Amino acid sequence: MSLLVTGSIGIDTVQTPHGSVEGVLGGSAVYFSFAAAPFTPVRLVATVGEDFPDEFRQVLAKRGIDLAGLETRVGSKTFRWSGRYEGDMNAAETVDVSLNVLAEAAPNVPEAFADSRVVFLANTHPTLQRELLAQIRTPQLTVCDTMNLWIENEREALLATLAAVDGIIINDGEARQLTGQMNLIDAARAIRDFGPRFVVIKKGEHGALLATEDEITVIPARPTADVRDPTGAGDSFAGGMLGYLAAEGCYDGQTLRRALLRGTVTASFAIERFSLNGLRDRTKADIDERVAALSRMLSIN
Amino acid sequence: MSLLVTGSIGIDTVQTPHGSVEGVLGGSAVYFSFAAAPFTPVRLVATVGEDFPDEFRQVLAKRGIDLAGLETRVGSKTFRWSGRYEGDMNAAETVDVSLNVLAEAAPNVPEAFADSRVVFLANTHPTLQRELLAQIRTPQLTVCDTMNLWIENEREALLATLAAVDGIIINDGEARQLTGQMNLIDAARAIRDFGPRFVVIKKGEHGALLATEDEITVIPARPTADVRDPTGAGDSFAGGMLGYLAAEGCYDGQTLRRALLRGTVTASFAIERFSLNGLRDRTKADIDERVAALSRMLSIN
Repeated sequence: MSLLVTGSIGIDTVQTPHGSVEGVLGGSAVYFSFAAAPFTPVRLVATVGEDFPDEFRQVLAKRGIDLAGLETRVGSKTFRWSGRYEGDMNAAETVDVSLNVLAEAAPNVPEAFADSRVVFLANTHPTLQRELLAQIRTPQLTVCDTMNLWIENEREALLATLAAVDGIIINDGEARQLTGQMNLIDAARAIRDFGPRFVVIKKGEHGALLATEDEITVIPARPTADVRDPTGAGDSFAGGMLGYLAAEGCYDGQTLRRALLRGTVTASFAIERFSLNGLRDRTKADIDERVAALSRMLSIN
Repeated sequence: MSLLVTGSIGIDTVQTPHGSVEGVLGGSAVYFSFAAAPFTPVRLVATVGEDFPDEFRQVLAKRGIDLAGLETRVGSKTFRWSGRYEGDMNAAETVDVSLNVLAEAAPNVPEAFADSRVVFLANTHPTLQRELLAQIRTPQLTVCDTMNLWIENEREALLATLAAVDGIIINDGEARQLTGQMNLIDAARAIRDFGPRFVVIKKGEHGALLATEDEITVIPARPTADVRDPTGAGDSFAGGMLGYLAAEGCYDGQTLRRALLRGTVTASFAIERFSLNGLRDRTKADIDERVAALSRMLSIN
């Protein structure tokens, strides 16, 4: 199935206890695309500024990502983010952020992408998410992300988006903030009441929770001693999940559970190296091997 | 196999967002014994004061716990602990503590218990742990717990204890404090270098990690929306693990992994109700049913 993602493309500067990188390719839609690419063809819808290096465009193209929806805004600058991780690296501290082109109008979905069947709306203003979604003719599966800013300031718009999607993938802090529920099972149920038929709550190094109508599934993160750079881990998780679901073309509870495992494994690759290096050369075979090992680890009777 | 536990017996007062109880039976050895009892006969070695209610003694006897090692100290008072849980209830705040009889000499292991094969040394001064261990003639499996106080103030004594046991079950904060390693896999490996051939790190609501020579296993906690009282969850976890291991009489990697699942399920019963009520009436069949469900939840390929 065709998988479309819309979200941010950024130029990142990142510091972790293990080193730092400056001016590298990043952004939610980029991590998602790199993560989903081994599973299924990916269509990217996003905007960049005139300063976006051609070299970065080549990196995306080389991963096989369809760039027909990548719009270069004349007179604008690309989104830039600078962040720092310390201690257990569970949360990024934003050092500097320049929204630039992200503060302008949303990108358009090109006509060639309007037949996309699986759609991931990475984090942006919830009204823009709905406008983007409206441009897809007959999606089979629509999933969104969001962030604390919209939960706090754009709650009505966000609830309208939640009523329009099939699923949501967010982190634990956001789930608690959105629902006022401290317990994540209660939080997931409360989010389902807003509309999505499934909810995935990412818990960083502690794994992820999937709530469907029938059941709750919780799995741990893959044990990883060498965490170098957590940037993009959540988007890589979503990319692995949605890439798998789009490839399967089936979205029932059992397939969602299997997708959860793929998302977990994909994120584990992402954090092992700086920026996109953990995902860059990963093949389907690499992922399958690690999925099998994680499945064995969890198989206890 | 005969399972011996030595640790504290307390009279607890506990407040959580869901209610409070006052003057109830508690303590590490009590939770452990209640948790292990469905798996195997339990021998309890501990001291109480003259004020210890006969009613509490009956509660222990009714669970089938062998009280030949329960010593009542004339002129002493029973250990008392008062604690409070707030918010996500992941950590207890100690409101008041009176060591009383716990500040005196350690209990003696009665001759009838000296042939015990599986031994759990619940948290106490590490030198006392070794003195107690020395009274067991030919243990097959010895496991200890510890706490921040000894890690900080009695490091040499603790390292001597670690060199003498087969395994340790501690929480994530203690593992980090003991080793200086933030990553729990690194921390578990560092603790194995101190002597124990296996290390279990409890992560509260986030599950547990088992490190053996060959492998790392991480499993989540059983998803539980109705957490009433986390008191004794860690000791219940240890009781479920060691009870299962003692019943199996086998301590290889695969059996340890299966024990990890039993510990997880046992802890999930403990936290559902106040004080010992979550464990009190649980049978082996109750545990087996929940183990099977958790095993199914984790079975994803």
